[in-house]
Amino acid sequence: MKKLNKEYVPAPGVKIIPLGGLEQIGMNITAIETEKSIIVIDCGLAFPSDDMLGIDLCIPDITYLKQNQDKVKAFFITHGHEDHIGALPYVLREINVPVYGTRLTIALIENKLKEHDMLKTTRRKVVKHGQTITLDDFRVEFIKTNHSIADASALAVFTPAGILLHTGDFKIDYTPVFGESADLQRFAELGKKGVLALMCDSTNAIRSGFTASERTVGRTFDGIFAEHRNNRLIVATFSSNVDRVQQIIDSAYKYDRKVVVEGRSMVNVIGIASELGYIKIPEGTLIDIDNLKDYPDEKTVLITTGSQGESMAALSRMASNSHRKVSITPNDVIILSSTPIPGNEKAVSKVINELSIKGAEVIFQDTHVSGHACQEEIKLIYSLTHPKYALPVHGEYRHLMAQRNLAQSMGIPKENILLMSSGDVVEVSEDKCAIVDHVQAGAILVDGLGVGDVGNIVLRDRQNLAQNGIIIVVLTLEKYSNQLLAGPDIVSRGFVYVRESEDLMEESRKVVEEAVTDCLDRRISDWGKIKNIIRDSLSDFLWKRMKRNPMILPIIMEVG
Amino acid sequence: MKKLNKEYVPAPGVKIIPLGGLEQIGMNITAIETEKSIIVIDCGLAFPSDDMLGIDLCIPDITYLKQNQDKVKAFFITHGHEDHIGALPYVLREINVPVYGTRLTIALIENKLKEHDMLKTTRRKVVKHGQTITLDDFRVEFIKTNHSIADASALAVFTPAGILLHTGDFKIDYTPVFGESADLQRFAELGKKGVLALMCDSTNAIRSGFTASERTVGRTFDGIFAEHRNNRLIVATFSSNVDRVQQIIDSAYKYDRKVVVEGRSMVNVIGIASELGYIKIPEGTLIDIDNLKDYPDEKTVLITTGSQGESMAALSRMASNSHRKVSITPNDVIILSSTPIPGNEKAVSKVINELSIKGAEVIFQDTHVSGHACQEEIKLIYSLTHPKYALPVHGEYRHLMAQRNLAQSMGIPKENILLMSSGDVVEVSEDKCAIVDHVQAGAILVDGLGVGDVGNIVLRDRQNLAQNGIIIVVLTLEKYSNQLLAGPDIVSRGFVYVRESEDLMEESRKVVEEAVTDCLDRRISDWGKIKNIIRDSLSDFLWKRMKRNPMILPIIMEVG
Repeated sequence: MKKLNKEYVPAPGVKIIPLGGLEQIGMNITAIETEKSIIVIDCGLAFPSDDMLGIDLCIPDITYLKQNQDKVKAFFITHGHEDHIGALPYVLREINVPVYGTRLTIALIENKLKEHDMLKTTRRKVVKHGQTITLDDFRVEFIKTNHSIADASALAVFTPAGILLHTGDFKIDYTPVFGESADLQRFAELGKKGVLALMCDSTNAIRSGFTASERTVGRTFDGIFAEHRNNRLIVATFSSNVDRVQQIIDSAYKYDRKVVVEGRSMVNVIGIASELGYIKIPEGTLIDIDNLKDYPDEKTVLITTGSQGESMAALSRMASNSHRKVSITPNDVIILSSTPIPGNEKAVSKVINELSIKGAEVIFQDTHVSGHACQEEIKLIYSLTHPKYALPVHGEYRHLMAQRNLAQSMGIPKENILLMSSGDVVEVSEDKCAIVDHVQAGAILVDGLGVGDVGNIVLRDRQNLAQNGIIIVVLTLEKYSNQLLAGPDIVSRGFVYVRESEDLMEESRKVVEEAVTDCLDRRISDWGKIKNIIRDSLSDFLWKRMKRNPMILPIIMEVG
Repeated sequence: MKKLNKEYVPAPGVKIIPLGGLEQIGMNITAIETEKSIIVIDCGLAFPSDDMLGIDLCIPDITYLKQNQDKVKAFFITHGHEDHIGALPYVLREINVPVYGTRLTIALIENKLKEHDMLKTTRRKVVKHGQTITLDDFRVEFIKTNHSIADASALAVFTPAGILLHTGDFKIDYTPVFGESADLQRFAELGKKGVLALMCDSTNAIRSGFTASERTVGRTFDGIFAEHRNNRLIVATFSSNVDRVQQIIDSAYKYDRKVVVEGRSMVNVIGIASELGYIKIPEGTLIDIDNLKDYPDEKTVLITTGSQGESMAALSRMASNSHRKVSITPNDVIILSSTPIPGNEKAVSKVINELSIKGAEVIFQDTHVSGHACQEEIKLIYSLTHPKYALPVHGEYRHLMAQRNLAQSMGIPKENILLMSSGDVVEVSEDKCAIVDHVQAGAILVDGLGVGDVGNIVLRDRQNLAQNGIIIVVLTLEKYSNQLLAGPDIVSRGFVYVRESEDLMEESRKVVEEAVTDCLDRRISDWGKIKNIIRDSLSDFLWKRMKRNPMILPIIMEVG
């Protein structure tokens, strides 16, 4: 291993603190801290896991940043995907520091800030690849990489302790659709200088080989367009994959078809990308969805959202007959240009089935390439940069493990590889790389306009309600005398179909009535006790009778 | 196409009625009906889809069979998987007719009947491959096939209208672990006689090629055993895949390891299979889980349930530290010998991550082969049987579509291929194959001991409760005078964390109080109206304030 360059001889060591990450895949946010200052790489949101019922999204807990507010200098954003920029509107409200990113990245952030009416209050700085920003103890250099969104960057962070290299989400595309290939020369140069720690994308670390070039998808599109000259074509993909959209437009132009863009985020992103020159749309190619009817099927292509089976997205609405402007016919050929994100498999199958039932043909093979580096690309980065320490990032634990194995196979000693969890404070210097502390971190749940007002108790209640429903027992007691004035009445929701279960409900009422009478006879006046007795007796009865466990909620009213 | 044999010249035509099937994948049950009699092929259960909150399982709606009870002669079961036998205990309670199946199939059914205490009341008949059962208008022949469970059969149903051939779930394994390869000669012979309609498994119809032999997995196991001589091995697979279990035992024996069987269904099935001779376990190979501690890691293998990430299964409990007898250590190598069933991907990933965090190695590549026929095998069956009509079965709509395309490519005219939905009555004769009627069919939901008492209204309530929680508003009114005696009180569950949202709850109470006072001032005495006004005003308030939509349940009590 190469010795570190003298220029970066270890000072006290720099701290790396992932504040989102592993526990909640997607919430990418990492603080880099010296004695004087903190910078933050990325600020993403995560989509809720299945057990987070009713939650809209998760944002990182930034308590630690707020506690060190004066030290925080800036956010540096690697690229414009939601899991890297999505929490900015929430976080910037609390910590208003400048945001640095490349052109498309900043444009997508601005689009988001506009929605939150925060455009005027937020400082944004557009950075070019190769450019370096100096802030206190840090110099941050943006390095060109490739990914499933244009303008992605790796970040080299020059610190008093040495160079930290963060790849962001990346792949290596030697023949990208737009712009240059990843700047491998710069990776090599930094390697020569000496990289103290490498934080490299692990998403595809369990996949062997090399991720195919985005261009291969374009060739598939051409083939499909050539083969289906008499059909209408509908292509669903991620709105942020502007190179993919470009290739669809290119094929459309080549085969003399008009293009309709459908789905809110698709319209948004294509608008931004074409305004900035990241997409080139030949004059007269785009038409409005309302003009679709003026062209024969074989002269049109729709580019749409919904490739993940999201129930409210355009493609799902078309599939379920609830799209106001597009009806699927047997003359449609639908191309799903994406792979289901883990957890979305069934939703995607559902959309495919619905489209098939309408007689449409659905194509989903060879119509997508990943945006993440496979094993050979990860090895290439290690080979170019020869880091002293490896801190794999992005991915589930098993993916980080897979990168650890790759790093070891590339000669990094086992003790120099560290898998970080959120909240870990990792101190890195020439002499060591170790977890030295742990700070508050994790996910804050957002439900509607509420940020953080739904926690574990509420989620547990929702799970219980979802599985078993609720039975509410109400009764009115007379003040002082504790005489039963009304009830007990029983109301249920989500438990059984009441009209078919009248006997059961009446028996339940009797069980409760007996329990209450018994309490009052025994002169039990503590409402807490009475409620517990009601809950236990009804719960016992229902378990024996039904093997079910609804939430039971006794409510006592008092009339004086 | 070959002409039908004179022996089976069309009478009025035979009816094929799928009663489960497409809408609820897994619930396999198909009635075959002539004027005089009905026989039923398979009787499976389905696991609930994600939106069926709290539901344990789905069984088919057999209203049609009950309406024609006197005609129903028997159930013929193709193989012993849950989606083909699981509903028998529920259905036989209502229609007590004999059940025919091969030896292992009947043994697995008996195991199930025992749990439901129905062994004495159910007639079971063990059939051998090649054997034919004659019942009224039908002769049913069991034909050997291969599948991921031993003793699987295709059924040839000789009817007055001609021969119906139902493949069951199948693959073709030329080198099976146990018993013979599928009886292709008999398929060919029936084809020569003339097959009126073929009902062929579509599960893998979108996959090209030929499903690999079960034996290939054995070779992988041997390789893994050879490579990990110092580790403890834990292999998770489907309990019903007795050939898979046999191969694990074979490798264990070869590498001189003791075998522990863990997980209730695994213990059950291996017990049954080895008793009947479907698994051969060398003397002294099996040890009890309590003796595991007496052997060093490298001398043991655990065969366990949980390969689908099921939260209560043995492997998941080991992964989450809640297994009472097995703790995962870095010296464990875990082999997942299965592929996630669609929908289980995330649960499986979770288990892999938990095992990885404990330092164990997890292997899941090349450790499984499918039990279903791929495209080349499906084509082979068409080629051998040359059916007049094709009625693809088993699989999602897109899979049936894929088989339709295969059938067309094999020369079956498009109009002779029919995709059936549950409840369709398909009449087949030499002259036609068409949907002639539609009968009641579909899924009955089972929740605890309740069969059918949870319907759409209850499920919608559960979904609403799961997403948004519930707010209960209670108040007590005086009889006749309608004066407010107590309340309104507000209680919520699954809505917000109340201690952090006291202001919101107090404001909500005030909103309700105003609404109620207003009602009473306006002398509105109709409780239904009062409840609606409460619901609307609180709902408006919460949407504006929180962008949330909890279920609101007003309850009025009356004291006289």
